[in-house]
Amino acid sequence: MPSLDPAQRQLGDMDADAFRRHAAAVTELIARYLEDVASRPVVPAVEPGQLRAALPSAPPAEPEPFEALLADFDRLILPNATHWQHPGFLAYFPSNTSGPGILGEYLAAALNVNAMLWRTGPSATELEQVALDWLRQLIGLPEGFMGTINDTASSSTLYALAAAREAAPELRIRQEGLAGRPDIPAMRVYCSEDAHSSVDKAVVTLGLGLSGVWRVPMDDDYRLDVRALERAIASDRARGVRPIAVVATVGTTSTTAIDPVPAIADICERERLWLHVDAAYGGSAAVVPAMRWVMDGTGRADSLVVNPHKWLFTPLDCSALFTRRPDVLRRAFSLTPEYLATSLGDDVLNLMDYGVSLGRRFRALKLWFVLRYFGASGLEARVAEHIRLGQLFREWVDASPAFERLAPAPFSVVVFRWHPPGLDDGAALDAANARLLERVNATGEAFLSHTRAKGRYAIRLAVGNIRTREEHVRRAWELLQELAGE
Amino acid sequence: MPSLDPAQRQLGDMDADAFRRHAAAVTELIARYLEDVASRPVVPAVEPGQLRAALPSAPPAEPEPFEALLADFDRLILPNATHWQHPGFLAYFPSNTSGPGILGEYLAAALNVNAMLWRTGPSATELEQVALDWLRQLIGLPEGFMGTINDTASSSTLYALAAAREAAPELRIRQEGLAGRPDIPAMRVYCSEDAHSSVDKAVVTLGLGLSGVWRVPMDDDYRLDVRALERAIASDRARGVRPIAVVATVGTTSTTAIDPVPAIADICERERLWLHVDAAYGGSAAVVPAMRWVMDGTGRADSLVVNPHKWLFTPLDCSALFTRRPDVLRRAFSLTPEYLATSLGDDVLNLMDYGVSLGRRFRALKLWFVLRYFGASGLEARVAEHIRLGQLFREWVDASPAFERLAPAPFSVVVFRWHPPGLDDGAALDAANARLLERVNATGEAFLSHTRAKGRYAIRLAVGNIRTREEHVRRAWELLQELAGE
Repeated sequence: MPSLDPAQRQLGDMDADAFRRHAAAVTELIARYLEDVASRPVVPAVEPGQLRAALPSAPPAEPEPFEALLADFDRLILPNATHWQHPGFLAYFPSNTSGPGILGEYLAAALNVNAMLWRTGPSATELEQVALDWLRQLIGLPEGFMGTINDTASSSTLYALAAAREAAPELRIRQEGLAGRPDIPAMRVYCSEDAHSSVDKAVVTLGLGLSGVWRVPMDDDYRLDVRALERAIASDRARGVRPIAVVATVGTTSTTAIDPVPAIADICERERLWLHVDAAYGGSAAVVPAMRWVMDGTGRADSLVVNPHKWLFTPLDCSALFTRRPDVLRRAFSLTPEYLATSLGDDVLNLMDYGVSLGRRFRALKLWFVLRYFGASGLEARVAEHIRLGQLFREWVDASPAFERLAPAPFSVVVFRWHPPGLDDGAALDAANARLLERVNATGEAFLSHTRAKGRYAIRLAVGNIRTREEHVRRAWELLQELAGE
Repeated sequence: MPSLDPAQRQLGDMDADAFRRHAAAVTELIARYLEDVASRPVVPAVEPGQLRAALPSAPPAEPEPFEALLADFDRLILPNATHWQHPGFLAYFPSNTSGPGILGEYLAAALNVNAMLWRTGPSATELEQVALDWLRQLIGLPEGFMGTINDTASSSTLYALAAAREAAPELRIRQEGLAGRPDIPAMRVYCSEDAHSSVDKAVVTLGLGLSGVWRVPMDDDYRLDVRALERAIASDRARGVRPIAVVATVGTTSTTAIDPVPAIADICERERLWLHVDAAYGGSAAVVPAMRWVMDGTGRADSLVVNPHKWLFTPLDCSALFTRRPDVLRRAFSLTPEYLATSLGDDVLNLMDYGVSLGRRFRALKLWFVLRYFGASGLEARVAEHIRLGQLFREWVDASPAFERLAPAPFSVVVFRWHPPGLDDGAALDAANARLLERVNATGEAFLSHTRAKGRYAIRLAVGNIRTREEHVRRAWELLQELAGE
C-alpha cells in the first residue's frame, strides 16, 4: 500500500529521497515504454469522452501517493494515447523524441528558468543563441541569421509575418494599427495553394483577414508558379492592394513540394517584399549534404522556420525562427514596462522582445543535448536512412500496377493511392482509398494520414521516426496491398 | 573515460540500458540541485557573452558521450543560470517547479504526443479538459467555463482579445481583416495604467496598434477607476471609436492591485464589451478559501487567464485560458485543411482550433500530477503560507521608520522603498533605492525586483516559491536594513 511522502503532510516540495525514488520509477516506465511501444496499437481504440468519464470530476481534496498517480498514468493515460513514437507512426509529419531530448527536457523542468530577460536566464539565453547558430550551420543557412526558439511553426510564421507588416515603419502600424485608417490599403501575403494553414491563421490574427492571403496556383509538381505570383502581385498593385510578403515552402505538408525559392527571392527583392520560408519539415533534410540543395535560395530570405521537434529528434516544442532582420522583428514585439527593465537595458539580448510570449522555457537545452549526442554525422545518418526508406516505398508504389503515386517525393513522404486498372477517377475511387486508409489504421500496426492532391483523395506515408526501420515500412506496404482488395 | 553508447554508432535512439544509466545520473543531479540550490548565488556573476564565448562556435561533427554533455551542463550551464527555484528568489512573480511537476514533464517528453487533434492525442486532449475543470473548481470559477492550456499568459490574452475582435461577426474581420476598410472604425481595448504589457503586445499583434489600448487611470490603491472607464468609453463612442473589450486585472504585476471586477462586469454587460480577466498571478490565491474573494465578479467574465506555472508549482509553461464563449474563440482560430481533417469532424474537441499553435504538447500531465500530489489542501497550505510570509514582511516594513510601503499588499507581494526621515521624494531617493536593490541582489542571498508606483521607484518583494521559508524572507529584510545605510 503506497503511502504519502513526508513533504506531502508538511509544506515545501517533495524531498530529495522521495524524488529519487519516484524518478527511478518514472525512468523505468519510460525505458520500458520506448522499448515496447511497437507492441501497442499506434492509435488507441477509444471513443471520445471515454477517458474523461473514467476520471473524477472534482479535484482531490487531500494529497495522493505518487504511486497512485503513476499507476493511473499507466492504466488510463498511456493506453489511450496515440503513440507518436511508435515505429509504425507514418502519419502527418513525425514528432520525434529521443533519449538525449527527453533528458534535456527533464533537466529544463527542474531548473525551470524563465529566460524572458538575459538577466533572468543568462545561460538559457546564450545557449539558445549557440544551439541555433549550430543548427543554422547544420542546415546550410549563411551567417547573418539570428535564431530564436518558439513553440511551433505556427507561432514562428505569425512572428515573421508580424515583422513583415512592421517592415514599413512609415505606415505606423505598431502605433496606430490598421482599423479606422483610410490611409492604410488592404494588404496581401502570397503563398502556394498547398502552403500550410498556419499562414492563414497568422494573417487572420494580424488583422489582414483570410482575404489577405492570396493562394498562388501550383505547377504540375505542386510548386508555387512563379509567373502566377508575379501576375498576382501586379494585379494587386494595380488595384491598390499592398503586397507585403511571400511565404515559400520547402516541403509542403500535403506533398512535401519545394517551391522555387531562388526565383521567388528574385521577385521579393525586386518588389521589396518580405520573404518568409516555411522549412518547418524540409529544412531538417539539409543536415544530409546530398539534400542540401533543398535550401537553395533560402539564404536570401528575410526569415525562415525549421522545426527540430519534427525531424531532428527533439521533443515538442522546439521551432527555430531565423531572421536576417532581427531589428524589425524586435520592433514588432518589443515593449519594456518598468517592472521588466534591467540596468543592462538594450545592450543584451532579451528573448521576450522577439515574440508574443513573455515567459520563455529553457528549450535550447534539449536541442543542445540532441545535437551533441548524435553529432552532425549521427543526425545525417538517421535522416538519410529515413529518406532511403521513403524512396524505397516510392519504388514499391511505382512498380505496383494497383497503386499510383500522385506527387513527386523529394524527401521521405510518399503521396499515393490505390488505383486498380478499370476504376475511374472520381468519388468512388476517393471513397475506396478513404476506406483503405481506415482499414490499415484499424490494424494498429501502422498509422498513415491522407491529403488531397489536386482534388484527388490521397494516402500519405511519412517516414521520419527515429524508431522506424525498413521492416515497419515494408509492413505498411503489405497491409496496404492486403487490405486494398477487401 | 566515458565512451559512446552503442546506438550512437548505429541508427535509432539511445537504447534502454543507456537511457536508464544516463537518466539515473540526471536524476541525481536534479535531486542534489534542488537540495542545495539555496547555497548558490540567486543571480550568477556572469557578463553578457561570457557563456557564448566558452562554447564551441560550430556544432560537433561526431557524437559525444552523454557524460560529456552532462559535465558541461554542470560546469557551464548550471552556474550561469538565474536560480528561479532558490528560496531567496523574491523577484517578479515566482516561476515554480516541484517534484511531481518535473516528473510529469519528464513523462510528457517521453510520450511526446502532439495533441493537435483529439485523434492524435485522445488522453492528452481529455486530460487537459479534466485538469482544467479541476483548476476551475479550485479557484472558484463557476461552471460553464471551458479551459485550454497555452504557453504563457501573453498568448492567452492574445487569444482572448482575438476572440473579442471576432465577437461581432457582422464586421467580417476574420474574412476581410481591418486594413483598407473604410467601414471598420478604430477599436479600443481598455485596461488600467498598471495592466500588463502583454495587453499592448496583443493589441498591436491584432492590428489595432498601441493607440488601440486605452490606459484608464487608477484610484489611490492602483485599481482601475470605474468612473474613468465609463467616461473613456463614452468619449470613444462619441468620436466613432468602437470599444471592444476591457481587461481587468486580479493582481497587477506592478503592485498586485485587484481591479473592481464586479463594477467592470456591470459596464461590460451594459456596453456589450468582452471582459477578459488577467488573473495570471492572483487567480492562484483563490485556492485559499479566505482569499476566494479576489475572484469576485470573475464568473461574469468572457475569459480569464490564470497561470499554474507561476504560483501553483507547475513547471513552465502552463497558462490556463478559461472562456464562457468557446464558440467565439474557435471562430477566431479554427481552420481545417484536408491534411488535418478526421472522420470525427467537429464532434470532438480538437485543441488546435483554440489558438495560434497547431502543435500541442501534453502540458496537462504535469498539472494533473501537481493537483493530485498536493491535493486541494496541500495547495491551499502552501499558498496560504506564502501569503502569511508576505504579510509578515509587510508588517516589518510598516513598523520601520526607515522604510515605507507604497501600495496595498493583498497577496504576498510587498511594494516599498527605503525612505529615511529627512530625505525628500525625488530623483535622489529613487536612485538610493535603485542602489539599495543592486546591493541586496549582489549578495547572492536574495533577488528582488523593482517597479514604479505612481512614478516613484519602488522595490518589490514577492513570496511564492515553494522552497521559501520564513528565514529567507527575514534574511532579505535584514539585508535591506543593513545595506540601506551604506
